[in-house]
Amino acid sequence: MFRNNYDNDAVTFSPQGRIFQVEYAQEAVKQGSVVVGLVNKTHAVLVGLKRNAEELSSYQKKIIEIDSHMGIAIAGLASDARVLSNFMKQQSLGSKMTYGRPIPLERIVTQIGDRAQTNTQQYGKRPYGVGLLVAGVDETGPHLFEFQPSGLTHEMLACAIGARSQMARTYLERHLDEFSDCSRDELINHGLRALKETLSQDKELTVDNTSVGVVGLAPEGSKSKIQSFKLYEGQETLPLLEALERSETSGEAGGEGSMEVDS
Amino acid sequence: MFRNNYDNDAVTFSPQGRIFQVEYAQEAVKQGSVVVGLVNKTHAVLVGLKRNAEELSSYQKKIIEIDSHMGIAIAGLASDARVLSNFMKQQSLGSKMTYGRPIPLERIVTQIGDRAQTNTQQYGKRPYGVGLLVAGVDETGPHLFEFQPSGLTHEMLACAIGARSQMARTYLERHLDEFSDCSRDELINHGLRALKETLSQDKELTVDNTSVGVVGLAPEGSKSKIQSFKLYEGQETLPLLEALERSETSGEAGGEGSMEVDS
Amino acid sequence: MFRNNYDNDAVTFSPQGRIFQVEYAQEAVKQGSVVVGLVNKTHAVLVGLKRNAEELSSYQKKIIEIDSHMGIAIAGLASDARVLSNFMKQQSLGSKMTYGRPIPLERIVTQIGDRAQTNTQQYGKRPYGVGLLVAGVDETGPHLFEFQPSGLTHEMLACAIGARSQMARTYLERHLDEFSDCSRDELINHGLRALKETLSQDKELTVDNTSVGVVGLAPEGSKSKIQSFKLYEGQETLPLLEALERSETSGEAGGEGSMEVDS
Amino acid sequence: MFRNNYDNDAVTFSPQGRIFQVEYAQEAVKQGSVVVGLVNKTHAVLVGLKRNAEELSSYQKKIIEIDSHMGIAIAGLASDARVLSNFMKQQSLGSKMTYGRPIPLERIVTQIGDRAQTNTQQYGKRPYGVGLLVAGVDETGPHLFEFQPSGLTHEMLACAIGARSQMARTYLERHLDEFSDCSRDELINHGLRALKETLSQDKELTVDNTSVGVVGLAPEGSKSKIQSFKLYEGQETLPLLEALERSETSGEAGGEGSMEVDS
Amino acid sequence: MFRNNYDNDAVTFSPQGRIFQVEYAQEAVKQGSVVVGLVNKTHAVLVGLKRNAEELSSYQKKIIEIDSHMGIAIAGLASDARVLSNFMKQQSLGSKMTYGRPIPLERIVTQIGDRAQTNTQQYGKRPYGVGLLVAGVDETGPHLFEFQPSGLTHEMLACAIGARSQMARTYLERHLDEFSDCSRDELINHGLRALKETLSQDKELTVDNTSVGVVGLAPEGSKSKIQSFKLYEGQETLPLLEALERSETSGEAGGEGSMEVDS
Amino acid sequence: MFRNNYDNDAVTFSPQGRIFQVEYAQEAVKQGSVVVGLVNKTHAVLVGLKRNAEELSSYQKKIIEIDSHMGIAIAGLASDARVLSNFMKQQSLGSKMTYGRPIPLERIVTQIGDRAQTNTQQYGKRPYGVGLLVAGVDETGPHLFEFQPSGLTHEMLACAIGARSQMARTYLERHLDEFSDCSRDELINHGLRALKETLSQDKELTVDNTSVGVVGLAPEGSKSKIQSFKLYEGQETLPLLEALERSETSGEAGGEGSMEVDS
Amino acid sequence: MFRNNYDNDAVTFSPQGRIFQVEYAQEAVKQGSVVVGLVNKTHAVLVGLKRNAEELSSYQKKIIEIDSHMGIAIAGLASDARVLSNFMKQQSLGSKMTYGRPIPLERIVTQIGDRAQTNTQQYGKRPYGVGLLVAGVDETGPHLFEFQPSGLTHEMLACAIGARSQMARTYLERHLDEFSDCSRDELINHGLRALKETLSQDKELTVDNTSVGVVGLAPEGSKSKIQSFKLYEGQETLPLLEALERSETSGEAGGEGSMEVDS
Repeated sequence: MFRNNYDNDAVTFSPQGRIFQVEYAQEAVKQGSVVVGLVNKTHAVLVGLKRNAEELSSYQKKIIEIDSHMGIAIAGLASDARVLSNFMKQQSLGSKMTYGRPIPLERIVTQIGDRAQTNTQQYGKRPYGVGLLVAGVDETGPHLFEFQPSGLTHEMLACAIGARSQMARTYLERHLDEFSDCSRDELINHGLRALKETLSQDKELTVDNTSVGVVGLAPEGSKSKIQSFKLYEGQETLPLLEALERSETSGEAGGEGSMEVDS
Repeated sequence: MFRNNYDNDAVTFSPQGRIFQVEYAQEAVKQGSVVVGLVNKTHAVLVGLKRNAEELSSYQKKIIEIDSHMGIAIAGLASDARVLSNFMKQQSLGSKMTYGRPIPLERIVTQIGDRAQTNTQQYGKRPYGVGLLVAGVDETGPHLFEFQPSGLTHEMLACAIGARSQMARTYLERHLDEFSDCSRDELINHGLRALKETLSQDKELTVDNTSVGVVGLAPEGSKSKIQSFKLYEGQETLPLLEALERSETSGEAGGEGSMEVDS
Repeated sequence: MFRNNYDNDAVTFSPQGRIFQVEYAQEAVKQGSVVVGLVNKTHAVLVGLKRNAEELSSYQKKIIEIDSHMGIAIAGLASDARVLSNFMKQQSLGSKMTYGRPIPLERIVTQIGDRAQTNTQQYGKRPYGVGLLVAGVDETGPHLFEFQPSGLTHEMLACAIGARSQMARTYLERHLDEFSDCSRDELINHGLRALKETLSQDKELTVDNTSVGVVGLAPEGSKSKIQSFKLYEGQETLPLLEALERSETSGEAGGEGSMEVDS
Repeated sequence: MFRNNYDNDAVTFSPQGRIFQVEYAQEAVKQGSVVVGLVNKTHAVLVGLKRNAEELSSYQKKIIEIDSHMGIAIAGLASDARVLSNFMKQQSLGSKMTYGRPIPLERIVTQIGDRAQTNTQQYGKRPYGVGLLVAGVDETGPHLFEFQPSGLTHEMLACAIGARSQMARTYLERHLDEFSDCSRDELINHGLRALKETLSQDKELTVDNTSVGVVGLAPEGSKSKIQSFKLYEGQETLPLLEALERSETSGEAGGEGSMEVDS
Repeated sequence: MFRNNYDNDAVTFSPQGRIFQVEYAQEAVKQGSVVVGLVNKTHAVLVGLKRNAEELSSYQKKIIEIDSHMGIAIAGLASDARVLSNFMKQQSLGSKMTYGRPIPLERIVTQIGDRAQTNTQQYGKRPYGVGLLVAGVDETGPHLFEFQPSGLTHEMLACAIGARSQMARTYLERHLDEFSDCSRDELINHGLRALKETLSQDKELTVDNTSVGVVGLAPEGSKSKIQSFKLYEGQETLPLLEALERSETSGEAGGEGSMEVDS
Repeated sequence: MFRNNYDNDAVTFSPQGRIFQVEYAQEAVKQGSVVVGLVNKTHAVLVGLKRNAEELSSYQKKIIEIDSHMGIAIAGLASDARVLSNFMKQQSLGSKMTYGRPIPLERIVTQIGDRAQTNTQQYGKRPYGVGLLVAGVDETGPHLFEFQPSGLTHEMLACAIGARSQMARTYLERHLDEFSDCSRDELINHGLRALKETLSQDKELTVDNTSVGVVGLAPEGSKSKIQSFKLYEGQETLPLLEALERSETSGEAGGEGSMEVDS
Repeated sequence: MFRNNYDNDAVTFSPQGRIFQVEYAQEAVKQGSVVVGLVNKTHAVLVGLKRNAEELSSYQKKIIEIDSHMGIAIAGLASDARVLSNFMKQQSLGSKMTYGRPIPLERIVTQIGDRAQTNTQQYGKRPYGVGLLVAGVDETGPHLFEFQPSGLTHEMLACAIGARSQMARTYLERHLDEFSDCSRDELINHGLRALKETLSQDKELTVDNTSVGVVGLAPEGSKSKIQSFKLYEGQETLPLLEALERSETSGEAGGEGSMEVDS
């Protein structure tokens, strides 16, 4: 058997300058069910596929609210994701305590990136085996970030990670121009369409396997500047899926199926 | 002999992104005798099979009371389970001291999940070799959680872990609809039926090999909101087993065999 | 040579979920000379076989008094046993200092169990290579516990550990019913009989190779509630061995050979 | 397969006195897309190539502002670069707090060099997998430094690191004499020309794949001594690229295409 | 070559429950030159053989005074022995400071036993490679203890450790009955005889290769209760060796050759 | 391939008592470009060859001023050298603060020697991969020391380390007698001649590849006792090189080409 | 190749109870050039051979003064020796500070012995690769000690360690009787003779390769009790070597060639 001598820990470079353990952690992300994120001038949307949704389990968490202005979608090791999401909740709470305002998206994303990088440069740790999409709104508007096991973080216009996510990314690239000015509902619809691309022929998006999270700027004239993070699970996703179906029939994204939330 | 180079510790990913030591710890759970958990709107029930019940030993602990509002059922390494259960008892006591109320189920489950995750990301530790079903009641009603060696925790409607637990899970999936509105006694009965499915042909549930734990909401009008966690061991399980037998004859779950406990 | 890749430390699971180093530590227990424990409603008894009793050594310690209400019998590595017994002495003393009463048996047994479990989940340690039988009396009456290198602890009605202990266990299982109501002397006699079962044909129990420890409730009307732990070594065991011989001749356990101790 | 026994960690010398892990980390730098730096008597310039600029990502960071008087260009592991750049930001801020003046370039470069060297002389760490070009202005004028994973730092007149950087270095060496007295715009132009040399035939510098950073002395008579670090991304680079094109046509570096920034 | 996979450190059990590194440390004891100890109701005696007594060295230390009431004889690694003996000196001094009385023999023996056991249960240490015979007098009379690298300690009536010590033990076992009531001089004589048994045919005990240490109860009517530890080296051993010779001629142990020491 | 089992870390002796990692670190010194040192009654001189002097780099540091009374020349890993030189600067500064006088040469040399020795006796570190020549003046006059990766330090009359340094040492040995009474300029000239010996036929010493450092006693009647350390780089070396050329033509060392520095 | 599995660190016993790394460290001593020590009732003398005395080096240190009453001679790793000698200097200074008198020889020798033993019982350290002869005078007169890498220390009448030291030891054993009453000069002469025995045929003792250190009791009637440690290097050794020559001619040790030092 071929024996790779450089892939046993994250503190060893291969002769080509690669860190295999970080790449293997990235494989754990690819094993996770797919999640998709999109952002435009007013909203940031996360959609996720709940894989192998067991009958006995209440629900599988693909999308988690971090704070009222921010949520994440996860692909990979769920227990690693919980540790990171709890860390983010604490940081966000701490920021509100200290500065009296929601933590800026870039700052919190940098914090988890640094935490993850540490695990790639210290013997006896392992990289986190999870990728995150972070969607939120701060004083500079809506943002979407991708977080990778290496600690790398990128601000993105749209992104998809997890199993078969390439299909979703292809959809997103093809429709990128349509996102920037579309409505909240249309943006959700694009996310669901991208998600659907990742399904094999005989699979469908259903209220049991679909999660949606949305956060955005409140409409002009609202009391609050922010429309809080809203998570749709189970039956709540029905209008969104119906809108998806209508749009597929009509050939247009978006529609009127979802209820607008007030923040 | 095939040599797996990635399965010696929990801080090494395989090229496919798997952490074998965590999977091997999960094997330790599968070696343990089976436990079953169920929850409905009013009660959460745990039942467990005491394997190889030695004549000389007073009793083997498959179900442990953590606090008056919560208990656990264990499958896997008993000494690991004791460490975790003692940790839970301390957390629960600490919560009562600090906040004057029982610790919410989700919080305590997250705490053991995080503690377990740590053991999968630090060299020199090993994952816990035990799975837990956590059943309890808090301000949001009855809950059932599954805890795995990876640190993963899921809220469940019903669950079974340990040796031959697949048979129990099949029963639970088939009767899931009957649980939600059934009585306390019927819920116990379903649990025992699921447990019985895991036995080989020539084995029976007896007062020596069966443990049952129940916790629930108190009937309307009670002084206390909660019917405290009640553990049935030995002869105490006799009425429950008789009810099981009657129901099997009659074809119905539940019955009147067990004494209602007052909290 | 077959090479087991999973048996070098106690923090590595085998693919079957086993921890071999803990199992090997259990082998160290099996190498130790046999000890036997029994408990009934009034007394807890330990008997032990001193193997290879050297002429030059004053005596080998198989049974150790921990406190006036508790003693242990050991099988395995004697230096590990001394560390654990000193720890128990300190804990017991500490409890008396702090709470003004003897430490409950279950608590102290849990403490050594937790201490031992730690050594199975931290790299650079090894499991204790000794098994213990803990016999004592507390406010809930007489108790017997078995402690294993894994940190596992069981309350037992009777138990035997060490070399050829299976023969003793068989005796104990066969006579379990006779224990519960028998007298202190009869209980000792049963212990010695079980011990004798483990000897090869040409060996005998003698004052040189036999140790006995007894603790119990004081007879009604005594000043103290507890009859303190009494250790019989050397010539002190003569009456007990004579009673054993008489009972074997007569076919009955117990007798009047031993002197009742006052606590 | 040839097995190198001296390349598993950074604390082992080979028989020839080499530290392979440091050399492998240098390979990670060579895998990064190229960045170029130049300095003359009045300005220091950084230019960088954004490789594989994904449509979905807002932008890739090749050049980062550390403080108003200093920026860096990176080649290699982006998460390592972020850790180092955040460290530099803190050091620079700390220096301003403590001494009331911008940190001298050589001092901050020595600080990251020492930090990196530590990782090459302590087991359990790994060298940083990133190279940096540090460009800035302090009381002794403009400076350019190269930082390598070994912790080595050199003051340079011009430098290029990353994939195919040899082509850029050749350009720089050939035109070194032209730099010292050229204008700010001409210096940028030389940087872009050097960068262009690294492209394969069918590639072009565009507003999407080019980053430019400039810092320098303010023109005589300005209020401030320093023209703050200015980062050009996306459309901002258009005039610079147009000037590049003009100069290529005319055969002269520099021109008037870029807007002078005021500090 | 046969490769034992379980003998590289003291924290690994073999499949048979053995700890090979502890057994190997015991081999170091067997490589040391022999020492013998004996105790009776009034005195404790140590005798030792100085092997390879170099002409150039003043003397080799086989017997060391720990305190006025206690001494040790060593076999094995001399530098390990010095560390342990210095530790014992400190403990003994500390006890006198704190409690105003000589440290009981069993306590100090337990202390070195525990210290040694720690080295067998913690990675990165090694067992002590030395065995000790501890002879002394405390409030309960004269005592002799054996200390082994495993941390095991036994109270003994007589003992011999080191190279060819089996011959000495055979002598001791055969004459055990004669010790208990014999005089101080006779006890020394028995020790020398046992020591002599270990010599090969052509070797003799001489003033150059023999060490003797004695401690005991003071004769009735003495001011002090204890006759302090007296170490005989070189010419001081001459009367003892002459008495040995006389006794061998006459066939009786003991005699009048040695000077009684006053404490 | 031959496999050396004793060369993986600096804390393992080979069966011949060698520490290979220290020897390999010495190889790193031999890879460095050569430096030469000389001392007489009035001055200490360092000269160094800048290898592969890149056009793009301002200059390569072979000689570093530590304090006004002391400088070093380095051969080997430059980042290790920087760490050591910064340590020396701090020590020297600290000594001035504390004792109000320049640190004696021998003391500071011992300090780096001890620091280096530590890295050869502690697992997880590696020896420094650099050799130093330390030249300076203290109250006992001018001194020259050699520092090796092993931590070994020698006071020398003259020394050369680095690639092809043997040729320089041969020159120094041959002309040792001429040093003691020669002038400052003649001593520099001898250093440059020794350096020149290491060049291959077609190479020359130039202002680009030569560094010179000098420190000495001030001429009688000067205000200061010490002529401060003077570093010659680039064009500053021109008179020294011209003097070298003149002396080669005339066959005499020294001359009048260099400007005397005032301290 | 034969592979020794027990010689990689100092915390592993071989099956025969040996610690190979300590033995290998002893080999490093044997690689060092020879040193010889002698002691009589009035003086202690050290002589050493400076091997490969380089022309360029001022001198090689084989003998080091620790304090006015004590010096050491070294064979083995010089940097290890410096660390130990500095430690001894500090201890001696500390003793003078605290107790107002020179540290007793045995105490300081025990301190370095304990320090060395620690390095043989803790993973991650290595034994010191140096042997020492410690010569000095304290309140109990002149002493000579040998220190070995194992931490073993012996008081000696005479000793030689290092390369070919066996020849010197043979001389010393043969002339041991002559030492005790000889004069200071005769004792030095014996040391030089022993040293000379280790030279190959064509080698001679010269002022360049010989070091001598002497310390002793001051003659009756001196102000000071001690004649301070006197180190002879270079030309200072000439009279001693001349006396050696005379004595060889005359066949007698000692003579009148050396100057008596006053303390």
